[in-house]
Amino acid sequence: MPEASQPTFATVSDVLTPKPAGPGTVHGVGLGPGAADLLSVRADRLVRGARHVAYFRKAGRAGRARRIVDGMLREDVIEFAMEYPVTTEIALDDPRYNQQLSAFYASCIEHLHAITARGEDVVVLCEGDPFFYGSFMHLYSRLQGLVPVCVVPGITGMSGAWTVSGAPITWGDDTLTVLMATSSEEVLTRRIRDTDALVVMKVGRNLPKLRRAVAAAGREHEAWLVEYATMAEERVTRLVDVDKVTPYFSILLIHGQGRRP
Amino acid sequence: MPEASQPTFATVSDVLTPKPAGPGTVHGVGLGPGAADLLSVRADRLVRGARHVAYFRKAGRAGRARRIVDGMLREDVIEFAMEYPVTTEIALDDPRYNQQLSAFYASCIEHLHAITARGEDVVVLCEGDPFFYGSFMHLYSRLQGLVPVCVVPGITGMSGAWTVSGAPITWGDDTLTVLMATSSEEVLTRRIRDTDALVVMKVGRNLPKLRRAVAAAGREHEAWLVEYATMAEERVTRLVDVDKVTPYFSILLIHGQGRRP
Ligand SMILES: C[S@@+](CC[C@H](N)C(=O)[O-])C[C@H]1O[C@@H](n2cnc3c(N)ncnc32)[C@H](O)[C@@H]1O
Ligand SMILES: C[S@@+](CC[C@H](N)C(=O)[O-])C[C@H]1O[C@@H](n2cnc3c(N)ncnc32)[C@H](O)[C@@H]1O
Repeated sequence: MPEASQPTFATVSDVLTPKPAGPGTVHGVGLGPGAADLLSVRADRLVRGARHVAYFRKAGRAGRARRIVDGMLREDVIEFAMEYPVTTEIALDDPRYNQQLSAFYASCIEHLHAITARGEDVVVLCEGDPFFYGSFMHLYSRLQGLVPVCVVPGITGMSGAWTVSGAPITWGDDTLTVLMATSSEEVLTRRIRDTDALVVMKVGRNLPKLRRAVAAAGREHEAWLVEYATMAEERVTRLVDVDKVTPYFSILLIHGQGRRP
Repeated sequence: MPEASQPTFATVSDVLTPKPAGPGTVHGVGLGPGAADLLSVRADRLVRGARHVAYFRKAGRAGRARRIVDGMLREDVIEFAMEYPVTTEIALDDPRYNQQLSAFYASCIEHLHAITARGEDVVVLCEGDPFFYGSFMHLYSRLQGLVPVCVVPGITGMSGAWTVSGAPITWGDDTLTVLMATSSEEVLTRRIRDTDALVVMKVGRNLPKLRRAVAAAGREHEAWLVEYATMAEERVTRLVDVDKVTPYFSILLIHGQGRRP
């Protein structure tokens, strides 16, 4: 569908959603862990009504956030896929890594700004909750003062994971620690030893390191791995029974054992 | 509305939701942080369709979970308010405290079991996410093997809190620690010192102790207090500007400052 900046006639959807006089809004919308009916009512309404949706994806991939809303988008939706630059050859601490990502985010902002400048809203699709380790945050900070931004919280991937694990994550005064498996083995070991309940995200290729850390902390037999929580491919396995590579979309859990009358 | 065990004629709602042959299911349904449109689509459907709803409340109070669904319930809904026994006179470590609570949960289970034994479902209303420091967990563990139970995850109170604070809670490899303000001052101080991002729940009467712990950890100027996130009474304040008692429904936050290209 072409993006006419001055439409010459009103379509049904223009009548249903009249354009406001000022600039449009960027909505960072949390979609929840994966199941289509775990969007909030507010998110569901925004997604189904959106003329413009934007989402991050890896080059050549469908994009997880985009897949969650399959079948929910308007027929005349205009999609903006924000494709991450390929950075696998560059080390995380190489300054070129940050430079490439910064340039990428700047180009996304330019595009979103152009849409809102025409008075139109954009819904940015976010896995889980946008403000919880989400890529949207990198847009959010750059959009401040430039474009009105609204954020809709979502059910996190970890809530999805502990729900399908079939056991509460925290009781009473339990301390919960949330870690990224991208952290060093030392950090992981120390923190896994020193918490009641545990969530580790971004497992994927970091599984061997994470496994060593869990073992060094003496907690192998308490740990569960949850892949694709609430999605079709969902799988819940004891860590000691995991015998293959785990996907990026997986979470390691240790359930708290706190006070319970 | 009387609870007839053998209805003699079908009502419109009986036709819309035919009774299954087996026992009914107890649904532990996460309602999210407070706003009515932050229920998930799945939760919204279950709540609006429920013939039986149950919820915890303090004696003489409306109950937070119940208030979230004001105006959403069926006209012929049958409500079961589970009123906590008054335990303020008994110390947490006094065995009578656990005995009273156990007897209370047992009586709740009995009632829920009686409903499901007639083939009817019950929706238990839960603030936030049911498996995250929720009272529902005490029913869940006792219902295992007795009654079919389903849990619907929800947006947590903390997601609501950091969203309305207007800033992401965690970036890059940030570690997030979630604490209960009911923990000892020593535990709080040590853990607040040793984390990137922080969430403290159950603040209320524990505010003076929590404040001392945040100060001892040298982080007073990073801390925010969020009361009634996403509800009508919502308030976001820097901890250093808080000059009054804070309600039970408040969360202390320190935002992470991790890697951001
Ligand atoms: C960039 S973070 C995004 C987190 C997201 N904003 C949230 O609130 O859950 C991506 C990580 O989230 C975790 N994740 C999110 N949803 C998940 C799900 N449904 N099942 C398993 N892991 C999930 C995985 O650990 C993945 O590596
Ligand atoms: C028994 S816990 C229940 C937590 C709930 N299951 C959840 O997922 O958020 C009660 C605590 O949750 C926090 N809380 C929940 N929702 C909140 C909100 N909307 N605003 C502020 N605090 C909230 C408060 O710290 C309160 O003391």
